[in-house]
Amino acid sequence: MSKKENILIIGAGLCGSLLALRLAQRGYTVHVYESRPDLRTTDIAAGRSINLALSDRGLKAMRLAGVEDKVKPLCIPMYGRLIHDKEGNTFPSNYSGRNGEYINSISRGELNGLLLSEADLYDNLTIHFNKKCISVDIENNVASFYEYETKTEFEVKGDVIFGTDGAGSSLRKSYYLERKFLFSYSQNWLTHGYKELEIPAAKDGKHLISKDYLHIWPRGDYMLIALANLDGSFTVTLFLSYKEGHYNFNNLTTEENITAFFKEQFPDALELIPNITAEFANNPTGPLGTVKCSPWHYKNKTLLMGDAAHAIVPFYGQGMNASFEDVTVFDAILEKHEGDWETIFKAYEKSRKEDTDAIADLAIDNYYEMRDHVANPIFKEKRTLEMAFEKEFPTEYFSKYSMVTFNEDISYSDAMKKGRAQDKAILNMIAGKEINMNSDLKTLLTRVKQETQAILQDDRIAGLK
Amino acid sequence: MSKKENILIIGAGLCGSLLALRLAQRGYTVHVYESRPDLRTTDIAAGRSINLALSDRGLKAMRLAGVEDKVKPLCIPMYGRLIHDKEGNTFPSNYSGRNGEYINSISRGELNGLLLSEADLYDNLTIHFNKKCISVDIENNVASFYEYETKTEFEVKGDVIFGTDGAGSSLRKSYYLERKFLFSYSQNWLTHGYKELEIPAAKDGKHLISKDYLHIWPRGDYMLIALANLDGSFTVTLFLSYKEGHYNFNNLTTEENITAFFKEQFPDALELIPNITAEFANNPTGPLGTVKCSPWHYKNKTLLMGDAAHAIVPFYGQGMNASFEDVTVFDAILEKHEGDWETIFKAYEKSRKEDTDAIADLAIDNYYEMRDHVANPIFKEKRTLEMAFEKEFPTEYFSKYSMVTFNEDISYSDAMKKGRAQDKAILNMIAGKEINMNSDLKTLLTRVKQETQAILQDDRIAGLK
Repeated sequence: MSKKENILIIGAGLCGSLLALRLAQRGYTVHVYESRPDLRTTDIAAGRSINLALSDRGLKAMRLAGVEDKVKPLCIPMYGRLIHDKEGNTFPSNYSGRNGEYINSISRGELNGLLLSEADLYDNLTIHFNKKCISVDIENNVASFYEYETKTEFEVKGDVIFGTDGAGSSLRKSYYLERKFLFSYSQNWLTHGYKELEIPAAKDGKHLISKDYLHIWPRGDYMLIALANLDGSFTVTLFLSYKEGHYNFNNLTTEENITAFFKEQFPDALELIPNITAEFANNPTGPLGTVKCSPWHYKNKTLLMGDAAHAIVPFYGQGMNASFEDVTVFDAILEKHEGDWETIFKAYEKSRKEDTDAIADLAIDNYYEMRDHVANPIFKEKRTLEMAFEKEFPTEYFSKYSMVTFNEDISYSDAMKKGRAQDKAILNMIAGKEINMNSDLKTLLTRVKQETQAILQDDRIAGLK
Repeated sequence: MSKKENILIIGAGLCGSLLALRLAQRGYTVHVYESRPDLRTTDIAAGRSINLALSDRGLKAMRLAGVEDKVKPLCIPMYGRLIHDKEGNTFPSNYSGRNGEYINSISRGELNGLLLSEADLYDNLTIHFNKKCISVDIENNVASFYEYETKTEFEVKGDVIFGTDGAGSSLRKSYYLERKFLFSYSQNWLTHGYKELEIPAAKDGKHLISKDYLHIWPRGDYMLIALANLDGSFTVTLFLSYKEGHYNFNNLTTEENITAFFKEQFPDALELIPNITAEFANNPTGPLGTVKCSPWHYKNKTLLMGDAAHAIVPFYGQGMNASFEDVTVFDAILEKHEGDWETIFKAYEKSRKEDTDAIADLAIDNYYEMRDHVANPIFKEKRTLEMAFEKEFPTEYFSKYSMVTFNEDISYSDAMKKGRAQDKAILNMIAGKEINMNSDLKTLLTRVKQETQAILQDDRIAGLK
């Protein structure tokens, strides 16, 4: 069943390894080149988040590749957020009013390793580690690599080249620098960066705090989150400004400062992170950026996918899910137009771009919402109302968060448009005292739906998106 | 009155020459390096638009520099658009319902030449032509230049360096490539490009069509515009897709194609452009791009201004006006914090960035509006109503276009927010048959104002901008 085309994939991260697996399943001859060593045999982390939230869009892609059953045991369900206040009190806040809707904490390394091992089962798929892509000659389908072991450079030609080489993509850089076409490109950084820390497991190997939640310490200008790992530890991420505010990454440089900051803002977390000053000093501070670009393809030759095409900030927990969904969407279009790569590439971007733009914008929205709106009373009332809607009318109401996270058949862009209109409707009805939380819930639902439709209609007439 | 700081300005275009003039007026020692020859003694055009629309924000900056009286004779007032249909019929459409509100066609070269000649009057200001900036060492305030005449490179150090070197700015490129800080950057291209053509003057030196209008041939996917020059000619600009649609830049390559296209779409214009096929072949096709970036400054050392910081598409006629307004805004902040460059640079971007982002977005809006909405009946009704409002209540109503173009004391971002809300209010009232054009105009105005405020309030509550 081997097809004649030789596929070259740059990058064996989450998106690249899933894509490789799927193309191998379709019978293509696939070569994947990865800059790092094999993460199944080497301990590497190097500045990328250790665990991630896997939700329904990602799981759908796992099903497509036939690995969902193997992924499930790696998952730790998180049924909601657990909010920690400054006094160490905690407040649960479920992700949905429906039963059975949760997101999963999963180790990036273990999931990636699983996909690589699945890929290894295919004779028509070869993975080459320690080969860093330097550039791509997009006109001639030739990628240049640097081989770390021998310190030499070599070239590889592919009939088609996929760039799944992440936010710092070499293929994307070649688009930018070769100037063969008008390449729209943006990189936008938040004022905040992030740093990972660790809550180790208890001596008996158990988790020191509940593993069933995504833990959040929201503080306006700063935020700490923690996701459980299978070994009993938690990976903690601090989001903090580089240089603004009383505490920031630039001035948290001494043991006293760091401890004072945590003691004041996150006292319960501080007790759980024994090596905080060493970790703070040794672990890298990473930037939070959004990358958008277009076009993703060049002729019938090359295509960007995953973070290489659309890197997003982590505040919606959708980065990995969006990249996996890329493969689901691509696979359906490949099925339809197999044999005509240029048509496939064009149809793929036409179908997919507005959705990856939408999740990028939603993730930015959530950054501001988490910072500025968490303490806003009308936002809290909205949440209460939406949870009640979802509990009472589970097939009739879906919050923006639910549409994005649990409804893999609603596109990101539709979820954004409808979700924003819904939020606007509810917030204004609450602010205008048009909602009495003791009224009949069905009547309230009907009014919210009417108002949502009216908002969408007004925007349409004004020619707004 | 000479100040001790040595100012280095890269680029003596419209923004750079005005900035240089203003800083010389303030007593700084100013050196300006320009890649081109002196346009007062050399005939150059090289891919930039020949004439431009100068309106109130630009004129305010001319007043600040004391040159308004010298600029006025270069202006050809345009009181409105003159729409040309496919049969050659024309329909006037004024820019405002108020008297005395018009925009001006002005030659880029003559205006730039005037600013350079004014600059030459200052002993503390020197302009160096034919020196192309290659890069800037932003840490050490050193710019490297290539000297065309001697074919050598040399370096210049400034206490402060301004990059007014346009959309392809070398200073901006150095920010991007030096990676000394997180540089947010975007370049976004439209699917359309542009090409300039000429309607020559009549034999008696007069204009062949009325010089009192901006002529427009709107055709949805294509558009032709024409602005008058003082010598009796018109500069015509064709906006056309590179590769989409029946006619595009990629397929208009033969004399037959070009003539057929104009004969079908712009027959009256075709008669006025005698050398159309030669001009089509010889004149460059330019791309239409938007550039945004942040931060604009590096420490107390360098600052981007004008197109170097924010290049926009031409569909609002505000590119030059926005760059001139940069100088107005910068001058007021310089006045307040003189002596502390880092504070000046920060305060300037904090004050200015949201406005240049707004005019960039408004210009993109107009691209779609001109293409898609011109033929839309509710948009036409809106225009009629707004003209009536402006005529009857000249101090009470200002359309979005009027706020942007004729109200230099309303910021671009306020004009955008209020103008969009106003448009949305009117369009929805028309679509909902809530407006009877025969009703009392004062009552209608009151209702539009109420609805506009309600829209702004709803957006505020929902946390939208």
